[in-house]
Amino acid sequence: MAIVVAGTVAYDSIKTPFGEMENALGGSALYFTVSASFFSPVKLVAVIGEDFDLSKIGFLKEKGVDFSGIEIKKGKTFRWKGYYDYNLNEAHTLETQLNVLTMFSPSLPEAYTEESFLFLANIDPELQIRIINQMKNLKFSAADTMNYWIESKPEKVKEAFSLVNAVTINEAEVREITGEYNLVKAARKIFDLGPDYVIIKRGEYGVLVFDKNGKTFFVPAYPLEEVFDPTGAGDTFAGGLMGYLAMKGDTKKLRKAVVYGSVMASFNVEEFSFNKLRKISKEEIEKRFQEFLSFCQVEE
Amino acid sequence: MAIVVAGTVAYDSIKTPFGEMENALGGSALYFTVSASFFSPVKLVAVIGEDFDLSKIGFLKEKGVDFSGIEIKKGKTFRWKGYYDYNLNEAHTLETQLNVLTMFSPSLPEAYTEESFLFLANIDPELQIRIINQMKNLKFSAADTMNYWIESKPEKVKEAFSLVNAVTINEAEVREITGEYNLVKAARKIFDLGPDYVIIKRGEYGVLVFDKNGKTFFVPAYPLEEVFDPTGAGDTFAGGLMGYLAMKGDTKKLRKAVVYGSVMASFNVEEFSFNKLRKISKEEIEKRFQEFLSFCQVEE
Repeated sequence: MAIVVAGTVAYDSIKTPFGEMENALGGSALYFTVSASFFSPVKLVAVIGEDFDLSKIGFLKEKGVDFSGIEIKKGKTFRWKGYYDYNLNEAHTLETQLNVLTMFSPSLPEAYTEESFLFLANIDPELQIRIINQMKNLKFSAADTMNYWIESKPEKVKEAFSLVNAVTINEAEVREITGEYNLVKAARKIFDLGPDYVIIKRGEYGVLVFDKNGKTFFVPAYPLEEVFDPTGAGDTFAGGLMGYLAMKGDTKKLRKAVVYGSVMASFNVEEFSFNKLRKISKEEIEKRFQEFLSFCQVEE
Repeated sequence: MAIVVAGTVAYDSIKTPFGEMENALGGSALYFTVSASFFSPVKLVAVIGEDFDLSKIGFLKEKGVDFSGIEIKKGKTFRWKGYYDYNLNEAHTLETQLNVLTMFSPSLPEAYTEESFLFLANIDPELQIRIINQMKNLKFSAADTMNYWIESKPEKVKEAFSLVNAVTINEAEVREITGEYNLVKAARKIFDLGPDYVIIKRGEYGVLVFDKNGKTFFVPAYPLEEVFDPTGAGDTFAGGLMGYLAMKGDTKKLRKAVVYGSVMASFNVEEFSFNKLRKISKEEIEKRFQEFLSFCQVEE
């Protein structure tokens, strides 16, 4: 099955302890799409400015990504500038230029609205709400956000969360939006809004999944010797997760999906932008998936 | 089989966001012993001052702990005073009174020196070296340390590490002693000293085990709703780990042992001192062990 994803397409300027890159392709929807397209067809919803070079993402069209939900507006594409120090878990924002994002009022192509899987990547929560309300046959939906929106539109973020099955969120962000330091309690506050799953992204500490029935699931992060650039790791994770679920058409495979998400994120951080993701094969994904399974095997 | 453990016996004064306690029973050897005694006989090596009330640890004697390696010296017992803020992963030391520790020059009872399992809990690395050199039939040994010794006697800490099979160490401490931020690289530097296993304790993020053959093993921390006092969690972890290994007499069961260690640590942090550990049953340990296994089970 296909997945609809709505989020940002961006030009990122990033500095890490290992290098820097200007105007790298990025944005939450784009990272998600690159990752999910290994598993399922993706229908992209995003806005770009006239300055965006669509040929740069032509490789996605070849992978079956539907661009009919991309709007081109007068003006400049969304831009993010930031840096990381040695604690690569935390991004420091230097500049956010919303640009054409402020003019975005998405109206989905008819074919998109019939799909069963939806991911609301990090974007203005009012747009997230507008998009989910256009979907007619949802089977499974998830939403992400970031501190920028939690601080400026907390009630809208909560409203968006109330409409989805799963929330994918950073550890610091779930603490911020719930006002609870303890993650068990924080997850409970998210459950009170409506979702069945709270999927907490912890960077180098992996992923922690709480479900409404009190079950807990952990996946560690891949022990990489070089984490080059963590930008987009969360969206890449969500892409693998949702891509696998949509491929199986079975939302009961969530745990396996979370491992596939972790696999994809582990590749993503090895190079700037999605340079690494563009090079990997399905065999490499499968090999790393098996490695992930071995990390928690109690019997050797 | 029995385990010999050498380390501190202390009076701790601790403040956490949830309460405070003066002169609580503590110390690395004591936490280790309380935990390990659920699995195996323990032979304790430690020094106490004349002010120490031995009747307070009489319950350990009933559990088969050998006290013949405890020396009583003129003066006061080792004291530690510290606090934690909401980030319970990090202890802030307010005061360290070494007291009788400075006069300790352990000479092990003959029966101790024949044992196969040894844990060098956090104590002056020169004492750790002195103790391991008295052991004649070691099958498996492990050592811990802390920033205090890494900063004051780094070469002695490394020498102690070079003599053991496994190092158990905090995430921040392994970075400090190796000068490597990346844990894969940090572990390699410890391997270069001699050990086969580097067991990295990450507080609420669980435990990460590297082995010399390039295998990695993770155990998450138990998702507790209340972490009351993390003091002694690392020693309690090591007690469960070594206790299980000695009980089985089989060092190939390391992964299971790491899970048992995590189980014991998860109980320890639920109350001050080892108040919680004193109350739990073997059935509760086994139940939580099964829960830990479920946390990483990919198929539900």
